[in-house]
Amino acid sequence: MPRYALKIEYDGRPFCGWQAQADQPSVQGAIEAALARLEPDLPRIAAAGRTDTGVHATGQVAHCDMRRDWAPFRLMEALNHHLRPAPVAVLACAQVDDGFHARFSATERRYLFRLLARRAPPTFEAGQVWHIRHALHLAPMQEAAHHLLGTHDFTTFRASQCQAQSPVKTLDRLDITCHEHPHGQEFRFSLRARSFLHNQVRSIVGTLERVGAGAWAPSDMKAALEARDRAACGPVSPPDGLYLTGVGYPQDPFSG
Amino acid sequence: MPRYALKIEYDGRPFCGWQAQADQPSVQGAIEAALARLEPDLPRIAAAGRTDTGVHATGQVAHCDMRRDWAPFRLMEALNHHLRPAPVAVLACAQVDDGFHARFSATERRYLFRLLARRAPPTFEAGQVWHIRHALHLAPMQEAAHHLLGTHDFTTFRASQCQAQSPVKTLDRLDITCHEHPHGQEFRFSLRARSFLHNQVRSIVGTLERVGAGAWAPSDMKAALEARDRAACGPVSPPDGLYLTGVGYPQDPFSG
Repeated sequence: MPRYALKIEYDGRPFCGWQAQADQPSVQGAIEAALARLEPDLPRIAAAGRTDTGVHATGQVAHCDMRRDWAPFRLMEALNHHLRPAPVAVLACAQVDDGFHARFSATERRYLFRLLARRAPPTFEAGQVWHIRHALHLAPMQEAAHHLLGTHDFTTFRASQCQAQSPVKTLDRLDITCHEHPHGQEFRFSLRARSFLHNQVRSIVGTLERVGAGAWAPSDMKAALEARDRAACGPVSPPDGLYLTGVGYPQDPFSG
Repeated sequence: MPRYALKIEYDGRPFCGWQAQADQPSVQGAIEAALARLEPDLPRIAAAGRTDTGVHATGQVAHCDMRRDWAPFRLMEALNHHLRPAPVAVLACAQVDDGFHARFSATERRYLFRLLARRAPPTFEAGQVWHIRHALHLAPMQEAAHHLLGTHDFTTFRASQCQAQSPVKTLDRLDITCHEHPHGQEFRFSLRARSFLHNQVRSIVGTLERVGAGAWAPSDMKAALEARDRAACGPVSPPDGLYLTGVGYPQDPFSG
C-alpha cells in the first residue's frame, strides 16, 4: 500500500484532542472519516504528536496508507473537500517510503504557546490564546526559562498520567518574545525538543507565567526543576494557546 | 448626562452588522443590552462606522450617555463583564465633551482587508479572511490601486443602496502588502479616507483581486473608475476579511 505523509492544521476547540475516542469528536476521527470517503477499510492513521483536548496545530504530521496510487496533490484536495466544515485542513501531502512513520521517525517537535495579556477579553482569538488580565514582565521569564534548557529530569513538569519511560528530556529551545497587541501584549513561547513529556509545555508555561507576574523569582524555576517533584510545579496553563507548529524528520517529506 | 467614547473590537460573524435591527443580533444591540444592565432607559448609542453583516472591527468608536458619573475604567470593565460571551470587547473608554459625536466628529476612517491565497481552507481564520484558492500577483494590484488615490467620483465602487449625498470621496491611502503564510500568502489592503461609500472597500478589493489574478489589467481599474458606472465594477468581495481598524478625530479621545 502506498504511504503518504500529511501536514495538518487544526483548531483544537471542537475536538477531544488528536486521538480517536468513542463518542467524542477527535481530529484523528475527522481525518479517518474523510479518508473513508475515498477508500473503505483503510488502516488507522498515526500522528507525530497526540495533542490534548483544545490544543491546536499548524504543522501536525500524520501518515496514512492507501490502496490506490494517489497523486499527492489530488489526495490533499480530496481530503480537504471531505473535511469541510470541520476546522481541519491538510496543508501538504507527499508520498513516503514504507519505512516512514509519522511518530517514530520524528526527531524533533516544535510548539508555540500564545498568551494574551490585556484587560479586555479576546474576540477573534477566543480559545486560541491564553488570556490573562494582568501585566507580565518578559526579562524574568527569559531568565527563568534559561534554567530549563538542556538535558534534565523534568518530573516536576510532567503530568501524573504521562506514559513516557523516562522523565529525562532535552529541551533545545525555549524562547519568549513580546509583541505589541492593541491595548495589550502578546507573549509567544517557542519550544523545541526531540520529544516532550505529557503536559510538559503547559506545565512550563504555567510556571513561567507566575515568574512573569512576579509571584515567583526566576531562581524558583531552577529549584522547581531540581525538586523533581510534580508538587513543585506552578499551575498548568490551559490548552487554549498551545500549537504544535512543526515536526522534524531526518529528511523532510514535504521538501521535494 | 456624562458622555463616554468607547473603542470597540468585534468579530462580525454572528451579527447582522453594527446597526440594531428587530429580531436579529447586532453589535449595537449587544452593547446596548450590556449598558441596560448598568442603567435603565439610556439613549441609543451611535458609532463612527455602521459595518455590514459579517464585517469585523478592531477599532470601532461609539459614544454613549450615562446618568451616573462612571470612572471610565470601571465602565469598560462592567461592559466587558456583561458582554460575555459575545465576541465584542471594549478596549478603551474615555469621558468626552457633550460636543463629541462618534460619527459626526470623525475625520478619518481606516480599514484593513485580509485576503488569504492558498489551496487549503482556513481553519483558525475561517470567516476572518477572504479565502481564494489561486495565486495573486502583488505588483499589478499595487499599480491598479494607485489609480484610485485622491479625490474621485467613486460611483463605480458604490452599492446601489448607498445613502451618501455625493459619490465624490477622497481616498488618502490604499496600500497592499504581501505576507508569508504557511503554504499560502496573505495580502493586506490598508485604506484610509475621511469617509467611505457603502460597499466601497469591498468593491475596490474585489476588483483588485481580478487584477491580481490576471483577469484585469491595471489600466482597466482606471477605466472602471472613469466609467462612473456601477456595472463597470468587478465582483464585490465577501465581508469576511474586512476590519474597521480605527477612527480619527481632531483630538483622540483615548490618548489622555
